[in-house]
Formats: sequence, C-alpha cells, structure tokens
Amino acid sequence: MYPVKEELAEYAAKVEGRLAALLPDADPDTKPIGEAMRYAVLGGGKRIRPYLTYAFSRLSGGDPATALDFGCALEMVHAYSLVHDDLPAMDNDVLRRGKPTCHVAYGEATAILAGDALLTRAFSALACADAPSDTVRRATAELADAAGYAGMVGGQTLDMQTEGKPVGETTLVKLQRLKTGALIRAACRLGCLSGGIADGELFSAADVYAEKIGLAFQVIDDILDGVGDPAELGKSVGKDAASGKTTWLSLLGETGARDYARRLTDEAVSAVARFDGDGRLASLAALLLSRSK
Amino acid sequence: MYPVKEELAEYAAKVEGRLAALLPDADPDTKPIGEAMRYAVLGGGKRIRPYLTYAFSRLSGGDPATALDFGCALEMVHAYSLVHDDLPAMDNDVLRRGKPTCHVAYGEATAILAGDALLTRAFSALACADAPSDTVRRATAELADAAGYAGMVGGQTLDMQTEGKPVGETTLVKLQRLKTGALIRAACRLGCLSGGIADGELFSAADVYAEKIGLAFQVIDDILDGVGDPAELGKSVGKDAASGKTTWLSLLGETGARDYARRLTDEAVSAVARFDGDGRLASLAALLLSRSK
Repeated sequence: MYPVKEELAEYAAKVEGRLAALLPDADPDTKPIGEAMRYAVLGGGKRIRPYLTYAFSRLSGGDPATALDFGCALEMVHAYSLVHDDLPAMDNDVLRRGKPTCHVAYGEATAILAGDALLTRAFSALACADAPSDTVRRATAELADAAGYAGMVGGQTLDMQTEGKPVGETTLVKLQRLKTGALIRAACRLGCLSGGIADGELFSAADVYAEKIGLAFQVIDDILDGVGDPAELGKSVGKDAASGKTTWLSLLGETGARDYARRLTDEAVSAVARFDGDGRLASLAALLLSRSK
Repeated sequence: MYPVKEELAEYAAKVEGRLAALLPDADPDTKPIGEAMRYAVLGGGKRIRPYLTYAFSRLSGGDPATALDFGCALEMVHAYSLVHDDLPAMDNDVLRRGKPTCHVAYGEATAILAGDALLTRAFSALACADAPSDTVRRATAELADAAGYAGMVGGQTLDMQTEGKPVGETTLVKLQRLKTGALIRAACRLGCLSGGIADGELFSAADVYAEKIGLAFQVIDDILDGVGDPAELGKSVGKDAASGKTTWLSLLGETGARDYARRLTDEAVSAVARFDGDGRLASLAALLLSRSK
C-alpha cells in the first residue's frame, strides 16, 4: 500500500508554508482582515484538494511549484466558502476545525470581507503562478466555474433551499456535485493542467476519479455527522438530523451508505488504474473512505 | 466639447446587453441567486468603469469586443462590492440606485451568495474574453489586486474601522484610493491592456488620470451625500453626517471641497492631454465633476 497518509501530512505542511507566503503582507490599517484571512486558511484542514492537484500533476509531468500554487488557490477558495457558509445568515455554525468559526472570532463584517479577499486572492495566486499563460487562463476558467453559480454557490443555494424538506437521490447528487464535487474536480483538473494536459484520457480519467471520490467523501461526511465524534471531528454533529435534512445516512441507512461509499471508491480506483502505477490515487481513495474525521 | 454624455449613455446600453449575455443561464433549482445577480448588476449604474476601459482601449488600439468584456468584468466586481457593502453586518443600506438593496429584496443569504457569484463570474469573463492569454493573465492580476485585500476589501475595512472617528486627510485619501480608486485604476489599465499596452507613457498617464478622477469622484460623492437630492440620487443621503464620518465635506466645507475636486479634475485632464486628441477623457472628467447623481 502506498504511504499516502504520510505523504498527505508532509504535503499539507508544504501547503501551509506556501499559503502563508501567498497571503498579503499585513497592513496595520486593515489588520483584522489580514488576521481573519490567516485564521480561516492556515493551521488546519486536511489539504486534500492541493494533494489531488499534486497527485495529478505527478501523472501529467507538471512542475511541482506550479502544482503547489494551483493547490493553494483551491485551498483559498475552499476556506472562503467555509467562512461564508458558516455565517449566521447561512448555516450559522460556531465551530470549525475545532476552533470558533471566523465570524465568531472576528465578527460578521470582517468574516464576510475576509472571505471575499480569500476568493479574490485565489485568482491572484493563479495569475502569478509559474506556468504558461494559456495554462493559467484555463486554470482560472476552471476555478471560476467550480466556485461560481454553476458550482459551489449553486450547491450552497440548493442546500439552503432544500433544508428541512425531503429530497430524492437525484437532487442530493446534484447538490453535492455542485457544492463540493466541482472544486474536487477542479483540483484534479488543475493537476493535469499544470503538466500541460487539458484533454485526453488522463484528463477524462481525472474527471471520473474526482466525481466518484467527491461523492464518496460526501457520503462519509453524512455518516460522520450522524454517528461521528464531535471532539475528533472538530465540528458540531447531529445537525443534519436535527434540521430534518435529507442525507445519504437518512436515505440509505448506515450500512447502505457505507456500501455506497465503498462502491464509489472502487469505481474511482478503476477509472485511474492504468495511470496509477504506484497506487497513490488508490490509496488516497481508500484513506478517504476509512476516515473518522 | 466632446459629446461624452451621449456616448456614455450609448455605451451603457451596450454594457447592459453584454452583461446580460455573460450572466449564467437560469437554473430552476438555484433560481433566486441567478435573479439576485441580475438584480444587482443589470438595470442601473452609470457604467463609468466600463466606459473608462473603452476610452483607454481606443487610445491603445484595443479590440472593442475585448474592451467590452473587460469592462463587464469590472462592473460585476463593482456590483458585488455594493451588494456586500450594503449588508446589515456592514453599512446596512436599504436603498441603492432607487431600488431596495439586494438583501432587502432577496434576503441576506442570497445577497451574500449572489455577491460571491458575481465576483467569481468576473474572473470567468476575463478568462473567456477574446484576447491573448498573456493579456488575460495580466488583466486577471490587475482585477484581483484592485478587488482584494490591498484594494477594495482593504478600503471597506478602513471605512468601517474609522466610522464615527475623526480622521485626517492622509487616511481619507488612503481609504478612498483603496475602496474606489483601485477599481477605477484597474478600469483604465484594462483599457490599455486590451490594446496590448502594459507599461510606458500611456499606461502611466492612465494611472494618473485614474487616481485624480477617482479622488474627485469621491469628493463629489461626499458633497452629494451632504447636500444632494435623495430622489435624484436614488439612495439615502445624510448618512455621513449622521454617523459622524469624516468626509471631504466635513474636512474642507462645500466650497473647499468643490475647489479640490476641480483641481483634481484639471490635473487628470493635463495628465492625458497629449493622448486625448478628441477630448473624450477631458469631457468625461468634466462630466463627472458636474454630476448631481
């Protein structure tokens, strides 16, 4: 088995360092925002998206520094989305990665602005990455598509609209494809792009892998919200059941949901098998399936 | 005198049409966000930023279609910033362009997400514009810098931090340079970039022109908030005085502020005089100086 857990932890440390460097210099006049940006994006997170970019960058022959910057851009978008989704007007969450959410720590206005600034900074990071301009442009388009109306924003909207209402599998798949799947796909695609690959077999395989592990990730998330340990997870649990939300757990039950996640993981692994000689992607999929936080 | 008023109105209609085309197709599942995005960005606004891009694009020999897409990206960023700045946690404004603000019309969560989606869409618009990738990449960097921590977000932060406190001219200039000046500079720069000009005399002149008209614009804004007609302005007035905010009006008085705006306008016109053969930029600066809304 590929030592993916160790490599992911090692890579997370690299991402942490590079993110810190990519964040703006502190301006004493606007200090709270700079601090809130660091609070939101540093010191936590599994860094799965940047690692996916790294993994596909390895397969496409991309430059590691380019992949790292692309990964940091994805992580900034991920962090911004958590800050905004946690706001009182949205999910009203108070705990994230074991710490008070950004608006609890810094106030609502600062949290909104820090999220805006992180989203914006992600596009700076792409524009300044060491890559050909054609690559940067395509990466920008992918990231914007994944983050915007037809991606994460659309998913969060659907999530709020269906809250407390029973929904079917089709809607649940669509919601999760938009809310979390789109950015995971962008992570895999940006890895391919970092090596100059923008279509073809590896690119298509990356899409399938992303779709399957993205959905599996969400199924596991639903299970953990129902039966997980809040101390280990570092966030509130039981919110789904309390709000009457339809989840994979409520639709399929724990055994059914675990079977489904396992099937999706197998499909992800098959899709990339011919490229995954050292088993990094297979091991990552297995790690995500077995996670307890 | 160049017929800038007529040309600006004509160009605003073009911007309106192109913005509508650049917005995402309505998805019935996430309808409110699509509607709120249209509400925020269509049907109003003087479209000064896109017009500035157009004007400098003319001088740099840029393609009109490229300039129009760049201008629409700027306008999406402008619209997003208004939506977020108007939120209850920020300026808590209820009236904008004569209509209820976005969160009053659609609710706070939808307004936050619509703003996020507009900001994101702006970067899509740049990435898809008909221009060389080097140009798109530079335009992306400029727009992100103008919108982010060291631009609009920083300015809004400074604005909130200094609310109700007396501030000096230096802080006021910094605040406005960040909050509104940065995007106006980006508008002029993107016009130059659309014609492949990324440095040199025209580019530097565009920067000075932008800085001066940007500051003059803000001085006039302050005067109008103090002595303007809310019906004509389409927004609340007297808010600055009520909140004890330092403005050009409170610092210099009405006559002093008008003199200052006139001097800035003269300096803007001088900076671009050798490029402004037909007087478009001079007439625009004069129009902005004399505006009553």
